[in-house]
Amino acid sequence: MTENPFSSGIFYDYPLIIKKLLTTPVRSASRQEIIFKDEVCLSYGTFFERVNRLASALEQLGVKPGDIVGVLDYNSHRFLECLFAVPMMGATLCTFNWRLALDQFDYTITHARPKVLLVNAEFFPLLEKIPESLGPVEVLVGLPGDEGLTQTSLNIAHEYENLLEKAFRSYDFPDLDENTTATLFYTAGTTGQPKGVTFTHRQIVLHTLSLAVTFGSLSSVARFSSDDVYMPLTPMWNEHAWGMPYLATMLGVKQVYPGKYNTEFMLELFERHQVSFSHCLPTVLHMILYHPQAKDMDLSRCKLFIVGASLHRNLAKAAMVRGIELISAYGIAETCPLVSAANLKPGTHDLTGEQKLDVITSAGLPAPLVELEVLDPQGLPLPHDGHTLGEVVMRAPWLTHGYFKDPERTLNLWRGGWLYSGDIGYIDQEGYLHLTDRVRNVIKTGGEWVSSLRLENIIRRHDAISDAAVVGVPDEKWGERPVVLVVLKPAFKKEVNEEVLKTFMERFADQGEIPKYVLPDRYIIVDEIPKTGVKKINIRMIREIYG
Amino acid sequence: MTENPFSSGIFYDYPLIIKKLLTTPVRSASRQEIIFKDEVCLSYGTFFERVNRLASALEQLGVKPGDIVGVLDYNSHRFLECLFAVPMMGATLCTFNWRLALDQFDYTITHARPKVLLVNAEFFPLLEKIPESLGPVEVLVGLPGDEGLTQTSLNIAHEYENLLEKAFRSYDFPDLDENTTATLFYTAGTTGQPKGVTFTHRQIVLHTLSLAVTFGSLSSVARFSSDDVYMPLTPMWNEHAWGMPYLATMLGVKQVYPGKYNTEFMLELFERHQVSFSHCLPTVLHMILYHPQAKDMDLSRCKLFIVGASLHRNLAKAAMVRGIELISAYGIAETCPLVSAANLKPGTHDLTGEQKLDVITSAGLPAPLVELEVLDPQGLPLPHDGHTLGEVVMRAPWLTHGYFKDPERTLNLWRGGWLYSGDIGYIDQEGYLHLTDRVRNVIKTGGEWVSSLRLENIIRRHDAISDAAVVGVPDEKWGERPVVLVVLKPAFKKEVNEEVLKTFMERFADQGEIPKYVLPDRYIIVDEIPKTGVKKINIRMIREIYG
Repeated sequence: MTENPFSSGIFYDYPLIIKKLLTTPVRSASRQEIIFKDEVCLSYGTFFERVNRLASALEQLGVKPGDIVGVLDYNSHRFLECLFAVPMMGATLCTFNWRLALDQFDYTITHARPKVLLVNAEFFPLLEKIPESLGPVEVLVGLPGDEGLTQTSLNIAHEYENLLEKAFRSYDFPDLDENTTATLFYTAGTTGQPKGVTFTHRQIVLHTLSLAVTFGSLSSVARFSSDDVYMPLTPMWNEHAWGMPYLATMLGVKQVYPGKYNTEFMLELFERHQVSFSHCLPTVLHMILYHPQAKDMDLSRCKLFIVGASLHRNLAKAAMVRGIELISAYGIAETCPLVSAANLKPGTHDLTGEQKLDVITSAGLPAPLVELEVLDPQGLPLPHDGHTLGEVVMRAPWLTHGYFKDPERTLNLWRGGWLYSGDIGYIDQEGYLHLTDRVRNVIKTGGEWVSSLRLENIIRRHDAISDAAVVGVPDEKWGERPVVLVVLKPAFKKEVNEEVLKTFMERFADQGEIPKYVLPDRYIIVDEIPKTGVKKINIRMIREIYG
Repeated sequence: MTENPFSSGIFYDYPLIIKKLLTTPVRSASRQEIIFKDEVCLSYGTFFERVNRLASALEQLGVKPGDIVGVLDYNSHRFLECLFAVPMMGATLCTFNWRLALDQFDYTITHARPKVLLVNAEFFPLLEKIPESLGPVEVLVGLPGDEGLTQTSLNIAHEYENLLEKAFRSYDFPDLDENTTATLFYTAGTTGQPKGVTFTHRQIVLHTLSLAVTFGSLSSVARFSSDDVYMPLTPMWNEHAWGMPYLATMLGVKQVYPGKYNTEFMLELFERHQVSFSHCLPTVLHMILYHPQAKDMDLSRCKLFIVGASLHRNLAKAAMVRGIELISAYGIAETCPLVSAANLKPGTHDLTGEQKLDVITSAGLPAPLVELEVLDPQGLPLPHDGHTLGEVVMRAPWLTHGYFKDPERTLNLWRGGWLYSGDIGYIDQEGYLHLTDRVRNVIKTGGEWVSSLRLENIIRRHDAISDAAVVGVPDEKWGERPVVLVVLKPAFKKEVNEEVLKTFMERFADQGEIPKYVLPDRYIIVDEIPKTGVKKINIRMIREIYG
């Protein structure tokens, strides 16, 4: 702002870049706090100075616009500093997932090729296992873990705090093109190597604004405002912790970062800092609710949104009994991730408990600016009738443009102007999305989707069944047809045959619970259902054997 | 969406266009209501159909992308339909101000040259006065007023409702470039002809999002959410009624449009529809509060933001006593208009009444993404110390790029990458902006701003003064120097001379209330202060005479 490229009359062409998210909080909330465990309490003013110092330091280490800087850390104020400083200097922040299988983790490092890698000392042993893959990494920076900077065979060139201390306290962050890549992280599919998704500055700024409106302006039971105290309960390497650290910072919210996941310590921080807003997986909610230490805690000020898996009604009920206000939200790595949130509509806050559960456990209503449809296998939009299944597709200003250095897999992600989620569901008359399945688990027959899970649940109602799987096998005429594999309980082996099962299923079609055309063609009694290493039904093997 | 320009793998390059604001409400709030007076109650679904019909009809009338469509109406559902349909088809909506002096009004019509003009019948007589200026208008469409479509010498080609009825019920709104001009309106300065300001789709979408965050996510006493019922109390031709109709629609809020301003009827609508959120000038708030009909009304559910002039503490107090939650907000025509809002910071809701008044009557904290400074006459930023005066300048993603067809006056609007507001104020240590003056009323001396209003208020404390004016006159060394003109009360004419006044003022400098360098050089006793036609001090004439 000291040098001036503007003549009179030339307007300032304001770019949507991450730097701008800091404009108001640094001014209006400079004394607000950012806390890390028991150890650190920064004012926003100091945080901003550290963001400047980090960028200065990285520049000294040779980081240039377009370079990739990696980070491998638990949820911390340092991670937050990276989320701002690295993109703001024009570089790309790559956040790594240490919980991947070693070969997949190795793949992400090798594929991203970070120039500088910031590593929490607790992950030194992990990196020691893949020394060859660190070849392209020019500088390793150590972040002290619980034991400080532990001994390692890695070549740790700098310690994070020392680096910041020696750096210039101010950095002239440039006005970047808003389409500059800001972040990169990897999503681990069930097949193949992880896929990298990138997001631009513009995408992150727009995601932040829409996230604010979704939890701030819409009629929500889980409202997020600058009066809240925020602590993330999902990891920051994944989906920028749902983008919430960007939003919390823009709003000047008090933030608490808990470090390594530990339910007990998390609960302590909740109580000490009066945390009021977070987001987590259902599993984490379960761990919190049923932890002995939580038994006598007042959780009634907590508002949560639940992500990553469907929220079970019983779990939601148990949370509501404790006074927690919660809703589901939906999004995937490719979508930055906000797509929808299960907000109640105006005038529906007095629903009965059961009705409210129906709403808050759904995948919700699209967030502002999000276009959402369910498509049939031909790519045509399906009615919002509350039952017709289709693949969930979306458009929003913040969806990834494609997989990083992976044009082949991108071909399958974007089709006909829609991002294909790989999720199967339906939209009800009120506009709420309900997810039922993953695409690989459904059967395409005669141009319709059939949920194998749904058929499986029906056949399982028969007393004789101890295990079952419904799989689509290739069919010349219909594309695919459902085939049922069942394992019978020993006591029933004599009396139950294929005909009995067929008759049993037909009853549900007669009653209108399932359409006739989805009735399986074949019922096969087996001794065991082929499973994968992680105990999932081995669809591929079943198709090979019975297809 | 039926024709598909996308091959596999090609992402959808989502433009920030007004059409997208409708995506979620049409889906999620299709049964929510939009009300006009006693007469009309539309569902969002029907509203959306009417937006489609309006665009179809305008296309039939020859409107093409880039054309200007004008509207001259009171606050109505039809105005709302125009705010969406016209920009969404790629044309520009020009909103006209019927309250301008006739020559200025005439100028705006002549300058904008709308191809189609939609006119409320109550403005037929106004247009009849400027028949020549309507030359470029190809089609006049009449909107029925209170008396329907009244007799007129104008060539009214169509009636609005007939037009919609005959039009196609669906229109294929294109995906426009987000930098397409969407709206145009005129701001009447005190000198010269009105200036046209334009806003693009991108600007309006981003303004809508930031407005949502300002009143939804920040710690506000005047929170706006989808649970509210909204009615505008500022005219829609000005600053898109603060952009609130766009926001209310995006959130699927129940909206009430009151037609022609009438306090009594407004109060009726307030009560009948349980209106909970609005915005108005201080004058309108005053009219509402002290209207006999409001005496026994419960106003405690109302939340207001006050715009257009500074909110007096006493008026704010009187509103708060009635349970109204209110804050000031600041913006000008050139800024779309949101710049700042006087939100309370987290943890300050328990301020005393007086402290709260200090905050809510200020011009507030910058909205998300807004950069705001006060600059000295050399264009350098001034400290945020709570007293140093400067000209208020800003940057945001939604500021007008320049005056419409007026490059000359644009030169003075944008300088050094900042939009100059013409307002003078200071920023306090908490970051709140306080406005004190207009630029034309302050004196630039030795590189500092001096508020003539402030000096005037001080000299007026002398018992002998019946009227006073402080004006900057050109000075070779200092740029300008303050000169005081006073009119003495008859009883004091003998005993008070220039020297007495000088000594009186010096006392305030000695006491530190004003700096010494602002002490006026000359004190001139006159019989009358030169005034303009509208009773304002005629600065220009004073400068000419005494400069």
